[in-house]
Amino acid sequence: MRTASLFSEMLQTITERGRRFLSFGAREDALDPMSVIAERCETLLSSRGEASGMALAKDILDRWRTFDIKSQQVFMRMLLARFGPKVERLETAIDAYRADQSPKALLELHVAAEPRRQELIRRLNLAPNGIATLVAMREALLRLKAKDPDLEAVDADFAHLFGSWFNRGFLVLRPINWSTPADILEKIIQYEAVHHIGGWDELRRRLAPEDRRCFAFFHPQLPDEPLIFVEVALTREMPARIDDLLREDREPVPANEATTAVFYSISNCQEGLRGISFGNFLIKQVVEDLRRDLSRLDIFVTLSPVPGFADWLSRERRSEVSDVLSATDRTRLALLDEPDWADRPESLAEIQPAMTSAAAWYFLRARDAKGRIIDPVARFHLGNGARLERLDFLADRSPRAMRQAHGLMVNYLYKLDDIETNHEAFAGRNEVVTTPAIRRLVPAERGGRNLVPLAGGNPDEQGRQGKENRELSA
Amino acid sequence: MRTASLFSEMLQTITERGRRFLSFGAREDALDPMSVIAERCETLLSSRGEASGMALAKDILDRWRTFDIKSQQVFMRMLLARFGPKVERLETAIDAYRADQSPKALLELHVAAEPRRQELIRRLNLAPNGIATLVAMREALLRLKAKDPDLEAVDADFAHLFGSWFNRGFLVLRPINWSTPADILEKIIQYEAVHHIGGWDELRRRLAPEDRRCFAFFHPQLPDEPLIFVEVALTREMPARIDDLLREDREPVPANEATTAVFYSISNCQEGLRGISFGNFLIKQVVEDLRRDLSRLDIFVTLSPVPGFADWLSRERRSEVSDVLSATDRTRLALLDEPDWADRPESLAEIQPAMTSAAAWYFLRARDAKGRIIDPVARFHLGNGARLERLDFLADRSPRAMRQAHGLMVNYLYKLDDIETNHEAFAGRNEVVTTPAIRRLVPAERGGRNLVPLAGGNPDEQGRQGKENRELSA
Amino acid sequence: MRTASLFSEMLQTITERGRRFLSFGAREDALDPMSVIAERCETLLSSRGEASGMALAKDILDRWRTFDIKSQQVFMRMLLARFGPKVERLETAIDAYRADQSPKALLELHVAAEPRRQELIRRLNLAPNGIATLVAMREALLRLKAKDPDLEAVDADFAHLFGSWFNRGFLVLRPINWSTPADILEKIIQYEAVHHIGGWDELRRRLAPEDRRCFAFFHPQLPDEPLIFVEVALTREMPARIDDLLREDREPVPANEATTAVFYSISNCQEGLRGISFGNFLIKQVVEDLRRDLSRLDIFVTLSPVPGFADWLSRERRSEVSDVLSATDRTRLALLDEPDWADRPESLAEIQPAMTSAAAWYFLRARDAKGRIIDPVARFHLGNGARLERLDFLADRSPRAMRQAHGLMVNYLYKLDDIETNHEAFAGRNEVVTTPAIRRLVPAERGGRNLVPLAGGNPDEQGRQGKENRELSA
Amino acid sequence: MRTASLFSEMLQTITERGRRFLSFGAREDALDPMSVIAERCETLLSSRGEASGMALAKDILDRWRTFDIKSQQVFMRMLLARFGPKVERLETAIDAYRADQSPKALLELHVAAEPRRQELIRRLNLAPNGIATLVAMREALLRLKAKDPDLEAVDADFAHLFGSWFNRGFLVLRPINWSTPADILEKIIQYEAVHHIGGWDELRRRLAPEDRRCFAFFHPQLPDEPLIFVEVALTREMPARIDDLLREDREPVPANEATTAVFYSISNCQEGLRGISFGNFLIKQVVEDLRRDLSRLDIFVTLSPVPGFADWLSRERRSEVSDVLSATDRTRLALLDEPDWADRPESLAEIQPAMTSAAAWYFLRARDAKGRIIDPVARFHLGNGARLERLDFLADRSPRAMRQAHGLMVNYLYKLDDIETNHEAFAGRNEVVTTPAIRRLVPAERGGRNLVPLAGGNPDEQGRQGKENRELSA
Repeated sequence: MRTASLFSEMLQTITERGRRFLSFGAREDALDPMSVIAERCETLLSSRGEASGMALAKDILDRWRTFDIKSQQVFMRMLLARFGPKVERLETAIDAYRADQSPKALLELHVAAEPRRQELIRRLNLAPNGIATLVAMREALLRLKAKDPDLEAVDADFAHLFGSWFNRGFLVLRPINWSTPADILEKIIQYEAVHHIGGWDELRRRLAPEDRRCFAFFHPQLPDEPLIFVEVALTREMPARIDDLLREDREPVPANEATTAVFYSISNCQEGLRGISFGNFLIKQVVEDLRRDLSRLDIFVTLSPVPGFADWLSRERRSEVSDVLSATDRTRLALLDEPDWADRPESLAEIQPAMTSAAAWYFLRARDAKGRIIDPVARFHLGNGARLERLDFLADRSPRAMRQAHGLMVNYLYKLDDIETNHEAFAGRNEVVTTPAIRRLVPAERGGRNLVPLAGGNPDEQGRQGKENRELSA
Repeated sequence: MRTASLFSEMLQTITERGRRFLSFGAREDALDPMSVIAERCETLLSSRGEASGMALAKDILDRWRTFDIKSQQVFMRMLLARFGPKVERLETAIDAYRADQSPKALLELHVAAEPRRQELIRRLNLAPNGIATLVAMREALLRLKAKDPDLEAVDADFAHLFGSWFNRGFLVLRPINWSTPADILEKIIQYEAVHHIGGWDELRRRLAPEDRRCFAFFHPQLPDEPLIFVEVALTREMPARIDDLLREDREPVPANEATTAVFYSISNCQEGLRGISFGNFLIKQVVEDLRRDLSRLDIFVTLSPVPGFADWLSRERRSEVSDVLSATDRTRLALLDEPDWADRPESLAEIQPAMTSAAAWYFLRARDAKGRIIDPVARFHLGNGARLERLDFLADRSPRAMRQAHGLMVNYLYKLDDIETNHEAFAGRNEVVTTPAIRRLVPAERGGRNLVPLAGGNPDEQGRQGKENRELSA
Repeated sequence: MRTASLFSEMLQTITERGRRFLSFGAREDALDPMSVIAERCETLLSSRGEASGMALAKDILDRWRTFDIKSQQVFMRMLLARFGPKVERLETAIDAYRADQSPKALLELHVAAEPRRQELIRRLNLAPNGIATLVAMREALLRLKAKDPDLEAVDADFAHLFGSWFNRGFLVLRPINWSTPADILEKIIQYEAVHHIGGWDELRRRLAPEDRRCFAFFHPQLPDEPLIFVEVALTREMPARIDDLLREDREPVPANEATTAVFYSISNCQEGLRGISFGNFLIKQVVEDLRRDLSRLDIFVTLSPVPGFADWLSRERRSEVSDVLSATDRTRLALLDEPDWADRPESLAEIQPAMTSAAAWYFLRARDAKGRIIDPVARFHLGNGARLERLDFLADRSPRAMRQAHGLMVNYLYKLDDIETNHEAFAGRNEVVTTPAIRRLVPAERGGRNLVPLAGGNPDEQGRQGKENRELSA
Repeated sequence: MRTASLFSEMLQTITERGRRFLSFGAREDALDPMSVIAERCETLLSSRGEASGMALAKDILDRWRTFDIKSQQVFMRMLLARFGPKVERLETAIDAYRADQSPKALLELHVAAEPRRQELIRRLNLAPNGIATLVAMREALLRLKAKDPDLEAVDADFAHLFGSWFNRGFLVLRPINWSTPADILEKIIQYEAVHHIGGWDELRRRLAPEDRRCFAFFHPQLPDEPLIFVEVALTREMPARIDDLLREDREPVPANEATTAVFYSISNCQEGLRGISFGNFLIKQVVEDLRRDLSRLDIFVTLSPVPGFADWLSRERRSEVSDVLSATDRTRLALLDEPDWADRPESLAEIQPAMTSAAAWYFLRARDAKGRIIDPVARFHLGNGARLERLDFLADRSPRAMRQAHGLMVNYLYKLDDIETNHEAFAGRNEVVTTPAIRRLVPAERGGRNLVPLAGGNPDEQGRQGKENRELSA
């Protein structure tokens, strides 16, 4: 504690001192703030930046933090316009490369094509706590980019550097439990994106019992900020309903009697790191970690939402011709329109077979315009090498789950020895690995629309999409 | 200890498991090793690399470690030939850019120009302890590059990534003292590049007394490997001889009576990080750290070698016409040719004025072909904003110092409030900031050769050169 | 985390293994549990206890934990009856001492008089986490002792050992803040004994703002169990109402602008450590700690309850003759009998002078049967060397404070340079150090009853009483 | 590092401040130092000691540190004379106890018999780093006691408190290896008492190779001071010569191939803790620790010196009648008188059978005046429950081993499942557990002198003696 605060105080001193050299007096203050900050960025990139980089970087980030959204956009467009590659040098490099495709010419071309923004961002990282502000800066940038697509080029520079900085090799896996510092736990409450945590008592129920585990990735320079975390329940069998895991009055399973580890929630924490992938490493490392501690564990499985199901089903029901739904199915599924269907046993008996059959199709046959499996959570887990293991009817009665998936959840199974093969099948051949039972649920084909293309979609595309999901899973 | 070893054991398990998927049976073993490793690199870059990246990366690095120098070169040339940019995509990108210089086209050009090696190196970092092997790999590469300049393009990719990964913002300053772990201290003995440390007893004399300090930068992922360190002596005055600091029988100064901190040795530790600059940050941060702990300290100064002096002086003495040396000087300096000159008081009386006068010229007037100040240590400290404070005649009688500088040392003064201005003068105008006393030592000009050009050399060039010195200083 | 759990697992293994030797088969299980545990205690004290002490100790503590209150009492009486000193040896030692009062005879007398319980308790501490169970054991013992005064002798042995083990020299002061582990914070909520903490949000308001501090003493062997903690508010002036410190909507004071540190709550945490004193060290060390971090701080003061005031005042009001209360006072104080007096401005104007005058008497003149100042919190702070600084009328409107003290609170001032003198005055001469303003409030004497005796009470007695207060203050 | 130094600085401030109150001006300095320190001790014990205990304690310990040996003795005698029990209170307590042997009277007798020194020592522990000085103080006391047996009573008080403070339950086992801080390793070199460590290179050979381990117990308040440590070699078989373990050019055994852990050196570090036993816990805990990490290990054995053997053998050889030595034995053993016997193969062939036979007698039959096994190392390991496993002829050719034991060493086997039974046999029945092979070496009895008494020695006595050995083993 104290050490940390001394240290940050010391950094403060260094940067304060450096700052004095940066004040150009009243004249500058007369300038508009954007000219000033642009000038500072130029200075930071100059040789002078080497001598007082920390102070300059801090000054720039401090100014940024005072910007409203309008100024943020002006700043980002300034980065776009002013800190791209040096055009002249780039033109010369292209000419040289076209004249002689030597390694040297290629290298120069690569160097010349690098936007000056990249070195600028690297130097901004010199400021005390620079990385935290840079992540926040990109969060703002992502919002701006949604309306101003030109900023894609600026975002690409942030993403490029974050890809290096948050490389899995630099991340640290740490358990999150009831003896974790409160400021980190507070963030777990805030970032949980799958099954809402209502407060500290509920958090305690997710962390403290002996049949609960939680793990997060951290970056050494952001020791109080989880990047992504997964919540795990230890059980005696693969669960079919989220309530079995989360209800208040359940009896904890003695940890050494558990055979099954259930990943029931995975949440990304940093919007500013969107697209920087570490989720797949997380699950695998946690599996190994758990196996080590608890040798009786041998089933590793998720209990996951199906966020795209209700929309898709609704489209199918509205569609006049559907390969998916028979007339009977349509009749049965019409019962879903009654608001209290989930509480009527007689409706459930009708709905269940129709819905699970449709769900099997949703996973095994239905594809989006890019030829990809529709469900983003499915893309994540299947892309990681998991197997679609079971469809769980009416497994989550929370309003969100009812709205997104009529309460449907599924289990994905992580079997370490099969992960590689499963991944190959999915990434390489666009095949969904599943069980015979689920396969049998797929209705016999009624036509040719929307079948799984043999050649598969573009798996690269899939990977990218998967990464961009804030609520990854489970 | 235990945690660390458990953790690495766990990583081992993960990668072992992954490895099984990588064995393609006897067929592959028949292939030559270079084809195999090249294939692995391709796989690591493919989507499959995402699923079993850790195992693949470990496999490749393990293979690398078995390579002799010949295989290392073949491997590096393979990276050069096979993992550059995708030429087709690059050509398309150039065409598109020439057609329309939009941000989007620029971005695509930049992406297309990036060698595939960069992503490959990023993924190799997934292996347990990957970063340590990658640093060692570049150390080998630097040796190879000396004979095979084409490898510059490969080295540029390593240097680029290391520049991001070892960004000052990610480094941690830690004191090195007598309660530092022995495995780290052992490296201090080994890496000390300025004043040789003869063994543990001598190391103890450099670290344990209350008037000694030492600090090093570390990277969080290499917690046992100092990257650069500086040794400091606390004194009551600016020292004129290294022996005053290092002799065995000296009396330690009570730390709270010290007014002066002397940086008497700075050593880079990792040859594989050559050119990745953090030395300038080190000194400034240590100055702040010391001020905090010891409020009476107000002079921060080096006692530094002058490694280029003897060579330069010898050239001047050989040169028929010299602006530097008068006839008297030449006669006096001829005494240096007697092997025991340093022990003859009457010789010293003759030599001293001639040598210090020449040394003043060496620092203030003499320049190399690129217009830079000749001495690399001077470039480092002046580039950091220090002032050339004093010339110390016969300050180091060690064989190396006698050979390189006829025993001459100098003090550079770090005055925090002047650092910025000094740096500007040196970096911007190629001016050496020094004292009137030293300035007066420069002989009246005798001709026009070799004077400091008004416009200065190329300061960028200087910066780069400074960084490449393994024995930075002090 | 992991290390800790491995370690405890290992201890488990050791003790499990030892345990096997302890099972005497079915025969023993037929015995009543008290005979078994008594036998185990004998074995633990024997030479055999040295070989398998950990297992034996664990076994005994495990059995203890299953005991209901009845069995607990039987166990404690067994310790009383069976594990006192060896009577024969004691008799011999007494005879020898009476014959020759040599150091050797005295030593033997001391050794012989030591109950065997003490060594037994020391050996029970060998069990994994033994100390935690022993503290809990004494908590139970204190409850039993209240009804069974013979157990005092057993309690004395626990208290004796705890006095050695929890010696201030072994305790560690640690800051408690919002990055403290949740399991410790949970205990802060639970143990807070002065101003109730309603939940995590309220806890956060007490710890996270920059003008809040909290510190606790810990024992190295109980790293998750605070022993005593103090809550501090940084302010710009000495507060007159608790609400100024605790209300939700207050504006935090920038830490570096604060001049005053207010100790507004001190709570002991471990009932089982009752009478083991460390509260006085806590405040002094926190004062030094705060001064170091925040150099502008120069006033250290409490805002403390007056738990004995209402009872005393009620007795005085009921008493027919009182030196304290004039007729006017009685009339005015009668307004206190109206339930809503605190909300009636006109009543307040009447009550305030009468009440503060009575309060001044309560502190400066009133004494209990032992001649001690009546208020336990006053005894604690005055005994620590603080000065009674101000009476704060209607400073705490919580039901408890209204009931115990008609809302009265007081400030005690800790002025480091006066602590020693103040302590001397109080401990040595039974004088209450206070301000002239408070002194003036004491009504002119109306009689001779209950005046402060010149010779003072028994200060040892005071010390002892002070320590026994669970809710020490502030 | 920094935190620690800040903390000790803070303690410094507290105690400095307290100190001011302690200066009674010039008058006191005129007094002789012993009167002053005695007065301070009285004050520390008074109620005033509670308010400024830290400052007083520091003052007393500071004064003590300036004492020469003469003053130390005067001080200790002062403690003896002045800080024993309060005689009057003790007399009263004895009378009361004789009148009524109630628990209350017993308790008061115990309290009254406790020397005031004990509370004094407890309060001295309040000084910063008090425990370290107290341990040093007892080291001096032990030296004084050797000449001044009356001080036994003072030593008993130190020993009593150290027994509580250094209770095994408070100690921490930590591995010592090549990443242990140098200041601790330096102490390992210094404290090694069995096989001398020549310097850092030799230390590295004992710690760094993968087949070496070392563990030490630490007290939380003395984090840089090992209390006792054991050095372990991992091997493929039980070693017969120390050189097999320690010679420079040996080939390390891969740790996961080792089947045997050899404890080849155990050293106590703190002379001031003599008689405070933790050695037996050390070995058992290390055994468990090693088993955990290295599952193939299943033999745990020592290679131990036999320090009493040569003396005993010499006495037997000089004795005219010996049950032990036959005439042939005597002739053969006469060869030991030749200085170079160990290098003469023909002598060895003669000597070996005679010596091992005598050694078997030494262990199995020979007893000292108290009826105990003679060898202190044997007492330690057999008392811990080990078995005498093998006699190793000419196993250590170092001068010390040749002088003490004619080069003989032995192996003691720690078999966890037998430890309890072995301990029972030795401690309860004075039986040495060994192998049939060793048993067979004992010569047929030739008389009755010196046989193992059936009733055994006093096992309590043995325990005590064992503890007092500084060089415990191995």
